[in-house]
Amino acid sequence: MIDQRRLPLEEKYQEYSDFREVAEAIKNMVIRGAPAIGVATAMGIALGASQIKAKSYDELKDKIEDILKVFEKTRPTAVNLFWSINRMRRLIIKNTKSEVEVIKELLYEESKKIWEEDGKINRLIGFHGAKLIKPKAKILTYCNAGSLATAYYGTALGVIRSAWEKYKNIEVFSCETRPYLQGARLTTWELLKDNIPVTLITDNTAGYVISNKLIDLIITGADRIAANGDTANKIGTYTLSVLAKENKIPFFVAAPTSTIDLSISSGKEIPIEQRDEDEVTHIFVTRIAPFGVKVINPAFDITPSTFILQ
Amino acid sequence: MIDQRRLPLEEKYQEYSDFREVAEAIKNMVIRGAPAIGVATAMGIALGASQIKAKSYDELKDKIEDILKVFEKTRPTAVNLFWSINRMRRLIIKNTKSEVEVIKELLYEESKKIWEEDGKINRLIGFHGAKLIKPKAKILTYCNAGSLATAYYGTALGVIRSAWEKYKNIEVFSCETRPYLQGARLTTWELLKDNIPVTLITDNTAGYVISNKLIDLIITGADRIAANGDTANKIGTYTLSVLAKENKIPFFVAAPTSTIDLSISSGKEIPIEQRDEDEVTHIFVTRIAPFGVKVINPAFDITPSTFILQ
Repeated sequence: MIDQRRLPLEEKYQEYSDFREVAEAIKNMVIRGAPAIGVATAMGIALGASQIKAKSYDELKDKIEDILKVFEKTRPTAVNLFWSINRMRRLIIKNTKSEVEVIKELLYEESKKIWEEDGKINRLIGFHGAKLIKPKAKILTYCNAGSLATAYYGTALGVIRSAWEKYKNIEVFSCETRPYLQGARLTTWELLKDNIPVTLITDNTAGYVISNKLIDLIITGADRIAANGDTANKIGTYTLSVLAKENKIPFFVAAPTSTIDLSISSGKEIPIEQRDEDEVTHIFVTRIAPFGVKVINPAFDITPSTFILQ
Repeated sequence: MIDQRRLPLEEKYQEYSDFREVAEAIKNMVIRGAPAIGVATAMGIALGASQIKAKSYDELKDKIEDILKVFEKTRPTAVNLFWSINRMRRLIIKNTKSEVEVIKELLYEESKKIWEEDGKINRLIGFHGAKLIKPKAKILTYCNAGSLATAYYGTALGVIRSAWEKYKNIEVFSCETRPYLQGARLTTWELLKDNIPVTLITDNTAGYVISNKLIDLIITGADRIAANGDTANKIGTYTLSVLAKENKIPFFVAAPTSTIDLSISSGKEIPIEQRDEDEVTHIFVTRIAPFGVKVINPAFDITPSTFILQ
């Protein structure tokens, strides 16, 4: 697993031999992006299960349930986390009559399946999404919905990659995405690796490029989509959707069905993770704000479905 | 002159004995904020003039003209710079019959007057602006339009200070204002010194706090206002005005008449300064983006007059 906190200046890989380390990596954003969180969660659960010593199905089930609880507490907004947990839970419930070792094997196979499926789904999202993009399009994207946020290829960046393969003449603008700078650090890094032209801007330059007609469309990923289409995504996404509406350019969200949460009717019910103040008062180790200043640092905001092109 | 680049962690004062150093300080944003640039320009010109060795009016005038040209090249957008330069130029033209030393003295007096006037004007802006604010108001401000951006008291922060003196119960939210972080570094520092409650947010959290009804109004300063009211201000201001419009909260601009440029009819004619890429790819000395990435870094954007409450 590449340590995303160190990108783009360092490419360091982490290996985990304990499920608690995987859960910590999700919490600390070594692994991030809703689909990637889903995949890593499934793999972490399979890893944890493989190390359980249990004599009966019930003992195994109880011990796995403890593992699931650890993952449930890592990040509250990205629904792929809960989707993955529930898929693993269902598998255990379905196999009450199986041997302990067989269930461990089934969980491992399921996690591999989730991983493979995610890559395939992204290819499909890319293929279909690219139809929405015209040659020479100038595309604004936000945060990182690329390979690093998924098993492979990416959702929003999957669409961009697919459009690039098709036309070879699109151009991307990447917002830096404070506080965690996924746009500056990760999206530019991915696109430069693929030789796709990319221009980095600060988040507050989005209004300038959009109102100066330098952007044809906006595309982002999603962390949770309610039944009515309201979408939780990285803090700042809502602002981009308002700028798109005001300037009459399309705003698209690219996400797999595992990001849709039919159990909630609208965005109002999506829990918004509040993260540490240090992410705002510091950039890496450098303090940028005076001591004693109050901070709020919501990790996500809600874009109303009516602002999103379906 | 306090070195604003080092705030809030270091309070270091700079003294200048050469006008070129003052011009450099404006260019490098040791001194920033449209009114403060105006004041510093006048003082820099008076300083430069005082050191000129000239035997005649014409010789003095020519040599001062060279100084004016140095200042004209520092920052293209803030009109207070040109307003100050023209005010000093007019003074010279008006006094063709005066002795060289008398003109030097007049320029010094004029620069002092510009400095004093700015403080008084800000007090008045504050007094009148505070009438727009209700008790317990939650106010969003952007960049720094405070003491550090003016001679004293501030424009937007002047209004906030005045409302605080009146009610003692308002609350301020300050956007960090990438890339130069004037909000995180300077506005929070000023408000904390005055014990005015302030919460720091990233720029892209503005949409979240506004759409969650945590903000009653937005107030910013301005760098140049066209005859039709279109306003150039720190990059990102336009986005805030769009968010205000969408969420039906008032958006105010606080500025002295020296910021109004009647010679241009609309915002389209305001030159937008493009600053160094390093401001975006680095935060202080820390690189945050991959090598080779393209960057655009406009310092200002234009808010249409129709989005601003007059």
